[in-house]
Amino acid sequence: MNGAESLVHTLIDCGIEVCFTNPGTSEMHFVAALDKIAGMRCVLGLFEGVVTGAADGYYRMQDKPAATLLHLGPGLGNGVANLHNARKAKSGIVNIVGDHATYHVQYDAPLTADIAGIATPVSNWVKSSHSAREVAKDGAEAVAQASTYPGQIATLILPANTAWEASDGAAVKVTPTAAPKAPTERIEAIAKVLQSGEPTAMVITGFALREKALETASRIAQATGLHLFGQTSNARLQRGRNRVALKTVPYPVDAAVETLRPYKHIISLSAKPPVAFFAYPDKPSALYSPESTTHTLAHEDEDCVQALEELAELVNAVKAAPVIQTATVADLPNEGALNAKNIAATVAHLLPENAIVIDESITCAPDFFNMTQASAPHDWLQICGGSIGAGFPLATGAAVACPNRKVVALQADGSGMYTLQALWTQARENLDITTILLSNRAYAILKHELNNVGAASGSQIDKHTNKIALDMMELDRPNLDWVAMAKGMGVEAGRAADVKSLITEINKGLQNEGPYLIEAVF
Amino acid sequence: MNGAESLVHTLIDCGIEVCFTNPGTSEMHFVAALDKIAGMRCVLGLFEGVVTGAADGYYRMQDKPAATLLHLGPGLGNGVANLHNARKAKSGIVNIVGDHATYHVQYDAPLTADIAGIATPVSNWVKSSHSAREVAKDGAEAVAQASTYPGQIATLILPANTAWEASDGAAVKVTPTAAPKAPTERIEAIAKVLQSGEPTAMVITGFALREKALETASRIAQATGLHLFGQTSNARLQRGRNRVALKTVPYPVDAAVETLRPYKHIISLSAKPPVAFFAYPDKPSALYSPESTTHTLAHEDEDCVQALEELAELVNAVKAAPVIQTATVADLPNEGALNAKNIAATVAHLLPENAIVIDESITCAPDFFNMTQASAPHDWLQICGGSIGAGFPLATGAAVACPNRKVVALQADGSGMYTLQALWTQARENLDITTILLSNRAYAILKHELNNVGAASGSQIDKHTNKIALDMMELDRPNLDWVAMAKGMGVEAGRAADVKSLITEINKGLQNEGPYLIEAVF
Repeated sequence: MNGAESLVHTLIDCGIEVCFTNPGTSEMHFVAALDKIAGMRCVLGLFEGVVTGAADGYYRMQDKPAATLLHLGPGLGNGVANLHNARKAKSGIVNIVGDHATYHVQYDAPLTADIAGIATPVSNWVKSSHSAREVAKDGAEAVAQASTYPGQIATLILPANTAWEASDGAAVKVTPTAAPKAPTERIEAIAKVLQSGEPTAMVITGFALREKALETASRIAQATGLHLFGQTSNARLQRGRNRVALKTVPYPVDAAVETLRPYKHIISLSAKPPVAFFAYPDKPSALYSPESTTHTLAHEDEDCVQALEELAELVNAVKAAPVIQTATVADLPNEGALNAKNIAATVAHLLPENAIVIDESITCAPDFFNMTQASAPHDWLQICGGSIGAGFPLATGAAVACPNRKVVALQADGSGMYTLQALWTQARENLDITTILLSNRAYAILKHELNNVGAASGSQIDKHTNKIALDMMELDRPNLDWVAMAKGMGVEAGRAADVKSLITEINKGLQNEGPYLIEAVF
Repeated sequence: MNGAESLVHTLIDCGIEVCFTNPGTSEMHFVAALDKIAGMRCVLGLFEGVVTGAADGYYRMQDKPAATLLHLGPGLGNGVANLHNARKAKSGIVNIVGDHATYHVQYDAPLTADIAGIATPVSNWVKSSHSAREVAKDGAEAVAQASTYPGQIATLILPANTAWEASDGAAVKVTPTAAPKAPTERIEAIAKVLQSGEPTAMVITGFALREKALETASRIAQATGLHLFGQTSNARLQRGRNRVALKTVPYPVDAAVETLRPYKHIISLSAKPPVAFFAYPDKPSALYSPESTTHTLAHEDEDCVQALEELAELVNAVKAAPVIQTATVADLPNEGALNAKNIAATVAHLLPENAIVIDESITCAPDFFNMTQASAPHDWLQICGGSIGAGFPLATGAAVACPNRKVVALQADGSGMYTLQALWTQARENLDITTILLSNRAYAILKHELNNVGAASGSQIDKHTNKIALDMMELDRPNLDWVAMAKGMGVEAGRAADVKSLITEINKGLQNEGPYLIEAVF
């Protein structure tokens, strides 16, 4: 058995069921091993950002890692942005990155690069295997690292000769370190804050956003007067009808500061104290009042659900009733040209039971989030690292993880262009994804941000092109034709510019069992 | 004047004329400065791999750097693969990468990442500006670094507050260090090798591949019996009718070893001694005979043209006649279904005078290279770092650099998918590019490589999908429709499956003054 085979056997034995791949020459023995050994589903992405983003979506819905297969430093480089997003989402991923044979690196061949250097900024654990006999053990360690609560990026670099040389066979599974418990004294101190009666908010993310944990949090809120908020962006929030309705901290700094101003205490759970996405001249970085005190109930690597339960006991909230959503979803709009509000209302009304919603809707996000508060129960997945181009891949990975659930992707056009290659994977794997492509033909968020940062302008026309620099915020000239691009990658698609056709198209997508893209032009 | 404005003025004063951009919030003041100050052409790419690859193509054709504008660590990450290619091509690029305000980094906001860590593996120079008053000086230094012979990747990280705070105005241009001369004793030693009469080959790349330098090399060969070879992949080779015909070292290891076996001496010029792209079991890494001696005429950072001229004098070759191409291009094929050979023959025959050819044709590359040997004079640009996805962006950048020349892009389908977003930039800028998209619907190179590495397989069918892992080398199921994708991005396109329609389509493309894509299905 060669090193590659020992690694594939080990990954399977450690519970890895899916490998998202974009291989090259140096990974050929690993590919041959995947082909020869039963038990791993291989999903090809035509660009590595698709591969790493899909692995992120898979983890969020399975709570266990998938593997990726990437081609040396540049292949890993193409996956960096979505690994960044995955790391910020606390997703677990096992990256297998091929490298030149150990003895070949010294020759500085064209593809030679500092792979560990590229991996380090986006990984919690990086290792390059030294020999075929160590690869299996390194693979078992990589899975344990990726599975370490709440989820980590583990990057295993696989020199080509360690794949083709002889191994000692598969390695045994390594049990990941269990999540440490938040110390009781800390929880007791927070219980005292809650019992003080002083205005207090708790900002939550991570596993505390699952249905049952949120009910516990809501019980605590009911018993103590605590106010609950989700982080601005979250890896996975369970919400909708019959669930706790959670507000999130707004993205615009002024609104966020206004929201958190009243609180004397800010408690973080699985999160850092809330901060602005970006700095702006004359606006604060921290979103809470400078007079407030910050506390942490459980750090990101501590068991947040247990901390919540312990806190519930201490404040006598175990028997309190959680506040369950009673609102009803708005009526389906009738007609009219599309805008952010009526697109959101339409989606909210038609959202099927148990859907997985991928939100990369950017400027449309607040409308979608508000309107779907009382929709059928669903999971809500957002970009956590702020790097656009996560949406299509997250949808792809979530659909691979949950073949029996409908994925609804709310996808802005500018962001979608980063990783549109994912559509081909959706077609090849016949994934059950309906994409609402929000075609406003601009980097609309940047137009807002140009105002936010107070950057004045007085456009000069370029002598070569007769254009102005601010044209770089427009995606028209030419317009992107998403229906053509989707069909070009084998995904059925339709266009809607008014409410009636949007309803028809969404119903078509939802009835379809494979991928369907709707270009909503507004 | 704020820091961003001082930087834009400085870049323009230092000769930067083009900025390839994909900005975000943290770059808004730089965008506003670009908009306000005349003199910089801004070219938007809808993905950062397009931006960095275009800057590479621009440098190769202009011999001076363009700037890029990238959004924090993940935006830079998306550009890493084509920066890797650019670094290996010795192209000069000034990357401007926005960062959070210096005081905001400590809060670990979603987009916070180790930008210098991501930049270092693909940069020759990395600096983060400390204050608005230093930005202009840092910018001048970045241009000097990028312009340092033969070309370098300079990455300047621009914290948002250093862009919006007050500066002291533009900085003065910094003169880049001149290329050192190869030491005369080394050149004399090589002259002696050449005069020894022992079989000697010289492997050349870089600026030595320009028309006049190649004529000098050819004179030396005529005078001494030296055999000349180009590297396997080259940044820019001037060739075709009335020029020196240069063979290159073959890509397959066995063929390369066979080619170089006869030589007792291997001289490198602007290159390292020739090595295999990849290691393979039981094949050597070095492509030259273990009995041969290697020499370096000029290292990559030394003036190779001067070294050639000095060598020519020493071996009395100054008055020798260079061997100029006398072959004629093959006849235009008449008819038949397409294959690599007749596509190559058709392109070779129709190639217009002074074309810039971008070669990312992968498995078709040897046919194209051989058939175009006697085509109309042209420049031949290849991927130098082995990371696929350079083709469309290189074509984009070359066309921006040389608006009066026709760019002909020979683009494999699998590689093209990595950065297809470049087509939109080609349409927006109305760039004069005809793309021959080689649609063989497979990662054909990987099928060869699976055999090359000797990876046996015995495909197991996956129980979920009824597929085998080796399907990851096929791009069918579904087929990519390149005509639809190109039109979706505003690029006119047509399809050809036989020689007659290919000729019609190529002529259509060549007559067109904007971008045109031909999907050649074979």
